[in-house]
Amino acid sequence: MTVERKHREEIVRFGRRLYERGFVAATDGNLSVRLDEGRLLITPTCMCKGMMEADDLVVVDLGGHLLEGRRNVSSEVAMHLLIYRMRPEVCSIVHAHPPTATGFAAAGIALEQPLISEVVLTLGSVPLAKYACPGSADLSDSLRPLVAHHNAILMANHGVVTYGDSIEQAFMHMETVEHFAKIALVARAIGTPQPIAPDEVRRLEAIRTQLESARRAERDNLRTMEVKTSA
Amino acid sequence: MTVERKHREEIVRFGRRLYERGFVAATDGNLSVRLDEGRLLITPTCMCKGMMEADDLVVVDLGGHLLEGRRNVSSEVAMHLLIYRMRPEVCSIVHAHPPTATGFAAAGIALEQPLISEVVLTLGSVPLAKYACPGSADLSDSLRPLVAHHNAILMANHGVVTYGDSIEQAFMHMETVEHFAKIALVARAIGTPQPIAPDEVRRLEAIRTQLESARRAERDNLRTMEVKTSA
Amino acid sequence: MTVERKHREEIVRFGRRLYERGFVAATDGNLSVRLDEGRLLITPTCMCKGMMEADDLVVVDLGGHLLEGRRNVSSEVAMHLLIYRMRPEVCSIVHAHPPTATGFAAAGIALEQPLISEVVLTLGSVPLAKYACPGSADLSDSLRPLVAHHNAILMANHGVVTYGDSIEQAFMHMETVEHFAKIALVARAIGTPQPIAPDEVRRLEAIRTQLESARRAERDNLRTMEVKTSA
Amino acid sequence: MTVERKHREEIVRFGRRLYERGFVAATDGNLSVRLDEGRLLITPTCMCKGMMEADDLVVVDLGGHLLEGRRNVSSEVAMHLLIYRMRPEVCSIVHAHPPTATGFAAAGIALEQPLISEVVLTLGSVPLAKYACPGSADLSDSLRPLVAHHNAILMANHGVVTYGDSIEQAFMHMETVEHFAKIALVARAIGTPQPIAPDEVRRLEAIRTQLESARRAERDNLRTMEVKTSA
Repeated sequence: MTVERKHREEIVRFGRRLYERGFVAATDGNLSVRLDEGRLLITPTCMCKGMMEADDLVVVDLGGHLLEGRRNVSSEVAMHLLIYRMRPEVCSIVHAHPPTATGFAAAGIALEQPLISEVVLTLGSVPLAKYACPGSADLSDSLRPLVAHHNAILMANHGVVTYGDSIEQAFMHMETVEHFAKIALVARAIGTPQPIAPDEVRRLEAIRTQLESARRAERDNLRTMEVKTSA
Repeated sequence: MTVERKHREEIVRFGRRLYERGFVAATDGNLSVRLDEGRLLITPTCMCKGMMEADDLVVVDLGGHLLEGRRNVSSEVAMHLLIYRMRPEVCSIVHAHPPTATGFAAAGIALEQPLISEVVLTLGSVPLAKYACPGSADLSDSLRPLVAHHNAILMANHGVVTYGDSIEQAFMHMETVEHFAKIALVARAIGTPQPIAPDEVRRLEAIRTQLESARRAERDNLRTMEVKTSA
Repeated sequence: MTVERKHREEIVRFGRRLYERGFVAATDGNLSVRLDEGRLLITPTCMCKGMMEADDLVVVDLGGHLLEGRRNVSSEVAMHLLIYRMRPEVCSIVHAHPPTATGFAAAGIALEQPLISEVVLTLGSVPLAKYACPGSADLSDSLRPLVAHHNAILMANHGVVTYGDSIEQAFMHMETVEHFAKIALVARAIGTPQPIAPDEVRRLEAIRTQLESARRAERDNLRTMEVKTSA
Repeated sequence: MTVERKHREEIVRFGRRLYERGFVAATDGNLSVRLDEGRLLITPTCMCKGMMEADDLVVVDLGGHLLEGRRNVSSEVAMHLLIYRMRPEVCSIVHAHPPTATGFAAAGIALEQPLISEVVLTLGSVPLAKYACPGSADLSDSLRPLVAHHNAILMANHGVVTYGDSIEQAFMHMETVEHFAKIALVARAIGTPQPIAPDEVRRLEAIRTQLESARRAERDNLRTMEVKTSA
């Protein structure tokens, strides 16, 4: 199986999981993987992500032009291109409308309170990008100030976008956002959320920096090994 | 497999999905497909939609009289007939009680706020028909003013009806209604929903009109091709 | 397959469904079927209802004494016996703790408002029995005034019991109670539930009386046919 | 199949169930089983508990040092060691973030009200340990006062830990905590929870003491039989 075929099947698998968990309804959402420096693999427009097959995906260049595929490219391709351009290490992007997190986005409330240690350790805070029309240049403008410093962003009156160095990581960030939103919803429904104290948040942030360095070192190490092996 | 057999199996498949997702309980709900100008395929009364088989469905004429089948026709057949008469392009109808949207219908609150761009692009707003006894002529009266302008309607103290040019589209509209109701519920539970600004709503409505025209053109085109192919 | 074997497998099947839907946790809940005038088939105590097999069930007489089986009988057997004694036409009982309905039972609130036409047509209202210790004679006392007039009862600080003329019907009543509780919860969370007007409730109750007569006639008819066939 | 292999497969099975039920997101959570007086089997760090295989687990000694396995041990191993040291009869521990119970933990509210008889009979009350950094000695300090008297503990801004004499029992305690949290959430959302009266709580606690003695006697009996059989 070629690398591209593997990515196609992973997008199909995680698209199905988005749909089965109710993170998208109808034909909502889109997923992409960076194939190489000049090409993305991305889901087509107007298809239910729970019923796609590997050959439904399309390949586009970094200008968003269709290179391969018989379907039309997702109308949200500009959002994907912006993130891939601003974050060279990002290899995959997931956009969905998980209902609890999207409820926060519809009430104009970011997921920024440090309520759960695990979330501070993995995602930090999840900001809210101001409303902009889907598929428009305005949407790119609303995301641009946030993309560099976050791996998950709420988009007002729209949904959530997450990204990472693999589709599995991008998907798991989406899971974490919705899981955290459910916890925050319950905490608000029964009383007043009690955030972690600022000095304890700093302690978690320091651990997160260490974990990220270790992860980066491991990744670079793996690449070096791959280069040596293939040399 | 004949076209009718395919429709029978699709109704069974989407009926099962309604039940698995908790959009109906017990024997709630009903689904239909327009077979031709004079006949509907519809689910029987008093059966769990998660446990039907293709031969349990019944065929009725546009007066609601049983043409084929050993079971009794759904007690809601009049609602289906009204919609098929008023909307000649509609090919399928789904009626269910998804719990969040039905909660809005039990509190007398329509799903009309423009909170999510994707919903404005696909469904627009979802109005609330006033209460009327299920299966009665009153119910048709309560729906009649709304059928022409909407593809999804809340029915007070009852449930939801959606329709489209295929059973897949009718089902997806049902999914979108419940998904949107969940988002609106969360937004209300944690604060004040922040609707999209009126000029941005108009922009979305303009895109929706374009998308609908494109879809209609594509459909007409497909039909012309089919006619040519079969000629 | 004997009739008893069929009932054993149905209890296993609906037990699994109770567990998969989160209507019970751990070893909660119990199910029974009336085998004949002197014997019940019932789930054992201290077993997860999602992991039972047909041979784990036990047979007891109408005094609750073990007739068959290597496990101990459910500690709630007295509740089952009370209902079978008071309602000779009841053939199956399901007891579970579906979380939304049980939340009502923990807040001391019955599900008595006529909010949904389908629920008025099938269950009517669902009353709340006052708290009594599980497995005690007090529990039978708290249920006794309600058993004759209802097919589903909330038990304060405990859970829900439903019953019917088959295990499928008893299970579906349980589903309807939880489905209705979810709808009522949403209606309360977003505003004020708007009950159906009293004269419209009476209209629904009249239809329900008709449906029940029809169902009873059909059942009696079936039995007569069975007698003739086997004669 | 060796005993260790059986435990490996059970951890994999219950890990998958934690993930499928949404009790963990991404790589959250950890599970362990006591293999003998000097060794634990525990899940590795940085893996999704829904996608583990039996060989991904690691074996550590009671100082937390890796004895076997090619992955790194869970960062929460100190919490497991504390509980195994303080509770010699405990054979398995499950740590997860079920969203409703974790919402209580994020609002600083314990699950201590006697709202549901079944919960008083199995778990008693579920206290809240004060916040401490995951994986730190502080976390052990916050748990230490609670471990002896409870089989389930909420950890502020973190999640839930449960334990028992088998992985099945530890998992079922986790289920009961989340199930109870859902019930308590609904009761709070619709009104005021109505706790069981103090004398009735004492009656339930007396039954629980009896049940625990019976269970302990049965377990000791089983062990004696095993010793005799193997002798």
